[in-house]
Amino acid sequence: MNTTAAIIGGGVIGGGWAARFLLNGWNVQVFDPDPEAERKIGEVLDNARRAMPRLYDGSLPAEGALSFHSTIADAVADVAWIQESVPERLDLKHSTYREILADAPLDALIGSSTSGFKPSELQDGLDRPASIMVAHPFNPVYLLPLVELVPFARNADTGIERAKDILRSIGMAPLHVRKEIDAHIADRFLEAVWREALWLIRDDVATTQEIDDAIRYGFGLRWAQMGLFETCRVAGGEDGMKHFIAQFGPCLQWPWTRLTDVPELTDELVDKIADQSDAQSGALSIRELERLRDDNLVGLLRALKDRDSAAGALLNAHEKQLIAPLPDPDQKISAPLRLWEATVLPAWIDYNGHMTEYRYLHVFGDTTDALLRLIGADREYVAGGHSYYNVESHIMHLDEAKLGERLMTTTQVLSSDEKRIHLFHTIYASGDRAVATAEQMLLHVNSKKSRACPALPQVQSAIEAITAAHAGLLRPQSAGRYTGQRRSA
Amino acid sequence: MNTTAAIIGGGVIGGGWAARFLLNGWNVQVFDPDPEAERKIGEVLDNARRAMPRLYDGSLPAEGALSFHSTIADAVADVAWIQESVPERLDLKHSTYREILADAPLDALIGSSTSGFKPSELQDGLDRPASIMVAHPFNPVYLLPLVELVPFARNADTGIERAKDILRSIGMAPLHVRKEIDAHIADRFLEAVWREALWLIRDDVATTQEIDDAIRYGFGLRWAQMGLFETCRVAGGEDGMKHFIAQFGPCLQWPWTRLTDVPELTDELVDKIADQSDAQSGALSIRELERLRDDNLVGLLRALKDRDSAAGALLNAHEKQLIAPLPDPDQKISAPLRLWEATVLPAWIDYNGHMTEYRYLHVFGDTTDALLRLIGADREYVAGGHSYYNVESHIMHLDEAKLGERLMTTTQVLSSDEKRIHLFHTIYASGDRAVATAEQMLLHVNSKKSRACPALPQVQSAIEAITAAHAGLLRPQSAGRYTGQRRSA
Repeated sequence: MNTTAAIIGGGVIGGGWAARFLLNGWNVQVFDPDPEAERKIGEVLDNARRAMPRLYDGSLPAEGALSFHSTIADAVADVAWIQESVPERLDLKHSTYREILADAPLDALIGSSTSGFKPSELQDGLDRPASIMVAHPFNPVYLLPLVELVPFARNADTGIERAKDILRSIGMAPLHVRKEIDAHIADRFLEAVWREALWLIRDDVATTQEIDDAIRYGFGLRWAQMGLFETCRVAGGEDGMKHFIAQFGPCLQWPWTRLTDVPELTDELVDKIADQSDAQSGALSIRELERLRDDNLVGLLRALKDRDSAAGALLNAHEKQLIAPLPDPDQKISAPLRLWEATVLPAWIDYNGHMTEYRYLHVFGDTTDALLRLIGADREYVAGGHSYYNVESHIMHLDEAKLGERLMTTTQVLSSDEKRIHLFHTIYASGDRAVATAEQMLLHVNSKKSRACPALPQVQSAIEAITAAHAGLLRPQSAGRYTGQRRSA
Repeated sequence: MNTTAAIIGGGVIGGGWAARFLLNGWNVQVFDPDPEAERKIGEVLDNARRAMPRLYDGSLPAEGALSFHSTIADAVADVAWIQESVPERLDLKHSTYREILADAPLDALIGSSTSGFKPSELQDGLDRPASIMVAHPFNPVYLLPLVELVPFARNADTGIERAKDILRSIGMAPLHVRKEIDAHIADRFLEAVWREALWLIRDDVATTQEIDDAIRYGFGLRWAQMGLFETCRVAGGEDGMKHFIAQFGPCLQWPWTRLTDVPELTDELVDKIADQSDAQSGALSIRELERLRDDNLVGLLRALKDRDSAAGALLNAHEKQLIAPLPDPDQKISAPLRLWEATVLPAWIDYNGHMTEYRYLHVFGDTTDALLRLIGADREYVAGGHSYYNVESHIMHLDEAKLGERLMTTTQVLSSDEKRIHLFHTIYASGDRAVATAEQMLLHVNSKKSRACPALPQVQSAIEAITAAHAGLLRPQSAGRYTGQRRSA
């Protein structure tokens, strides 16, 4: 599969697209006439590298190659996806598309980041209009999954489905907008809120700070997870949505909003907003605010991910696509086994700045799972109603593992019988520094009856072979230790 | 200080107020003529008891007393705060206030949960108008901190400040709305969004599900933390707010919204919305949706709390008011300590359908952290360069914890000295089923020098007091066990 994308137009949005593609393993070819483009995209990329990996429990793919090109022709050669994020002027977008279409592969898809234009307007008068559709993202593009995908009648279904596949493969949630309208869907809501907010400020009802608090301490917390209708469904209670609308509908006729008119953006009003915003957030630079925003988004998204809910369910699905390393089944079984590797991820770091204690057991558990796959006690075996349960672990912490360090584990089988496996794992950081050990006892069970039972013959013989191969190894010093036992001299 | 409140009008909002007062230690006296009021408030209270304590790291105050009264006169006797949440009809609100004012203490404050009425309208024609102000909360009242506090010219400043103190003491964020307008502030935004959403559905541009996704996968995640203006400030980048408005302002004149008109709520449109909502969320009952919402809100709020940001900063401030740094030496520390509770989250479940082994250590680690906060080895202590590191754990798995089960831990201090704490934790599922134990050894370190050292005196004396109180407890059978040791007969 071709995994090279062209980014036409850098800036905050183009840079965010570049970061999302790169960190998902795509190569990215940028065209932007701004002499500052490389610096600006680099800054967005720094933010993305800092935040995005913290959303996942495993490692992201190796980062793709980033290159800058002085012509559109160069940037779009041999790419599968072209993302256009040039300023919101239709004439400029049309001339950009003409240049793109002259040199891009015939099957390349072109997504436009436009907030307002309809795809029929973008396609108007061009040679291969079916290549072009709206792919409207939300800032920061590398963290927020939503992308509004708006095709027009000329777009073939196959192109739309291919676009969805590509966008999903980089962790986004394409929302297929079936009828083109100005501003698509989400921005219509944002516009409505903006207009109302401008009136409130002009009329001195509220300041920028007060409006922000009214959102983030109230309905903003609801909308991060349920949106509008599901929230109302809950509010309506057992009487259901019809009842809710019947009760709530009439209020819509009341004079609660002034959304018809837009207040004139006089110098005075602009100054007022800018001054209030300075008072609210001026103590922090934009970079600091960006990082605060990203830290919070990572936290919010991870909270939803733990619950497999809303945007968190999208993340879990994306993570399953990303991660797969299996041990090599042919490796020698005589030495302590080398079954698992991992990297200390940002989400594994605690308030001390070290790897949190339970993440050591996370790595030990992944190592045990790799051993079980090696002896044939894999997912299929588990689905058949048999499994090994860990009944006991003794963990010793010997040294600290640090952010970004590569971890490797070794596994020694101390003993086994038809029902039990007695294991000793060691985690090494950066190659040779032992940071923790775990002694574990696994018990084979019939999981349907929740009762211990002998392993199936092929699994028994696989673990017996390893146990026999390990019989001559030196017994680890801390095997058989109890917690708090003094170390022998 | 008088900490008794009257709740006039139950239902979802009145019940939410009752729960927030009760769980913050206030007594609550309810008047609601609905014969189902007790059941309905009980259901809201069950949800609140399940969710609200998980926002805090320590225990909430002992729950206040809840009583139901057959007359307003009874309910408002001797209270400091009266919360009115009767239906949105001005005549009904006026007659309710007349009854309240006849029997309430002269200095009691009356907050109205009204979404739309202005305080001048509420006060009109009453005897003590200065007692009444708008205190408009957001559902679920026990989790969302925002309350719009709208006084009118007749209200004395002292009354407003007293109202703010009371609302802050129960963990809310009073937003003082300085100019009364219809629908206050937040609901004006909600109304605008609602109207636009109705048009999108009527015109078949989007379904309820698509609109919810457009919100929760995109700007909803931003609004949980920054609101509108700070988000725009970041989007505007280094050029600042003025530049952003100059760029964005003209779009407001574009025909992007249809907010002038409200679509007629025909039977057809109401059916369409209800059917779409059923397809979206009909598989879950309202109770299940409420719990999903609350679990997500707890997760989102805790994520913000970890970062001391947005609504999370409010929680941290409230927690400081609530929780004493040291336990009562005579009572709380004598039995095994109950320091932590958790729910088995979907992300904690492994391919066997059970709680993954490392999540047990996750819960044990959170319990240890709670103990360390209790003895004063908190974040501030860590920032000062001292910390306890866990050097050794012995975990025994006794039973399985299942998805959604409530976990509770107990902690026994086996011994301690100036550098070490020897602990024994037990995790219980659904109240009384012991599912795992952990014996741990913590070592006190100077984290700047990465070397063991004695704890600071106040922390030493706190842990010594607990160790002494636990000296008479039976030593757990599995303390001192090594992995694979046979159980004694």
